[in-house]
Amino acid sequence: MTVYLIGAGPGDIDLITVKAVKAIKNADVILYDYLANDEILKYAKNDAKTIYVGKKAGEHYKTQEETSQLIVDEALKNENVVRLKGGDPFLFGRGGEEVLELVKNNIKFEVIPGITSAIGAPTSLGLPVTHRGIATSVTVVTGHEDPTKESKQVNWDYTADTLIILMGIGNIKENTNEIMKYRDPNTPVCVIENGTLPEEKVIFGTLENISDKEINTPAILIIGEVVNLYEEILNS
Amino acid sequence: MTVYLIGAGPGDIDLITVKAVKAIKNADVILYDYLANDEILKYAKNDAKTIYVGKKAGEHYKTQEETSQLIVDEALKNENVVRLKGGDPFLFGRGGEEVLELVKNNIKFEVIPGITSAIGAPTSLGLPVTHRGIATSVTVVTGHEDPTKESKQVNWDYTADTLIILMGIGNIKENTNEIMKYRDPNTPVCVIENGTLPEEKVIFGTLENISDKEINTPAILIIGEVVNLYEEILNS
Repeated sequence: MTVYLIGAGPGDIDLITVKAVKAIKNADVILYDYLANDEILKYAKNDAKTIYVGKKAGEHYKTQEETSQLIVDEALKNENVVRLKGGDPFLFGRGGEEVLELVKNNIKFEVIPGITSAIGAPTSLGLPVTHRGIATSVTVVTGHEDPTKESKQVNWDYTADTLIILMGIGNIKENTNEIMKYRDPNTPVCVIENGTLPEEKVIFGTLENISDKEINTPAILIIGEVVNLYEEILNS
Repeated sequence: MTVYLIGAGPGDIDLITVKAVKAIKNADVILYDYLANDEILKYAKNDAKTIYVGKKAGEHYKTQEETSQLIVDEALKNENVVRLKGGDPFLFGRGGEEVLELVKNNIKFEVIPGITSAIGAPTSLGLPVTHRGIATSVTVVTGHEDPTKESKQVNWDYTADTLIILMGIGNIKENTNEIMKYRDPNTPVCVIENGTLPEEKVIFGTLENISDKEINTPAILIIGEVVNLYEEILNS
């Protein structure tokens, strides 16, 4: 029994890795989260069992503890278990919690990275998140803090040149207000809705006005001078 | 004529995306940089022209300007040109400079993201770069600043919980000294040499002592409490 914890990438079905496809093809059971593109499941064997353990609009379908337990249960009954998540399993994918549960139960695991939408969505657009003389550091952060979290509050004083926020639409007004304590309100912002998917949409603004725009989830925010560079690329 | 600017991923040949493989199979010309694994070129057509434009130990093989010009020249002569880089083309890949040159010459381009070693190497190991209650933000930065760069010096006061440094071995002593102005000298550090490749090696230390260890390039540094979590996973 081995559990393959796999990142499915940012959405475009072809942005999954060759390694992930091989593992999915070989899986007896696939436990999957919300995926930007669940067509990825087409790679599964006909008789593979697929179990949805993701979240539904606002409400939790299963708690993280229930999901971790389910992975353990399936691993004890099957040879090849795939745990499939959007993006990368360890960049805000809560994969660490599942790995700890596997380790506690002496279950062998392998982690297959995926392209995080934080980098994959802007790159696919043609938006460089670093650029010589403009941005030599990137911070990726979640805009949706765990409400049960007891530890420190997010301090938005991130000093990197480019700031990328995942899951940041729900709290966009509060977050951009906080960020403006540290960055110029005119700092350019680019929102990528449904990055790498056919329904992708790009919205431009500034820290000051981006929260007034109509934005649908899932979406990521890119904040920093690289957004101006991207507009230059687009308008050339 | 279209130029496909492609990220080859962190090294493991199977950590390339399905989309990248398709584009490489279809390429008339492939201009490639240093690749952690040049076996990726096996996907090329038999009659595809392959051109190495990377750097050799310390010295530049071609300048960035020469490379950008060569891509333009090949694009004007061929239908499908692939520009292949390790990792992701836009996360310290200097892809932005090449895109600006293509745009200036009215050459159509598409960017295919790759898994950056900054995330892919730790994820493949089983090292979560974020974890509930331990790390909710990640900064990726280069440790090798452009020597010709006239703009601001790197300030190592990065406030994210996890700090990941690419190309950081050459200046490891200077950089960790700078980082210790802002972080506890006992902060755990993990170095991943040749991440995702068979010759991968992992070295543990702290900000204070990591520069005394023998480290070979290419390697990345992961700095922060997530390194302790990883040791906990390893030792369970």
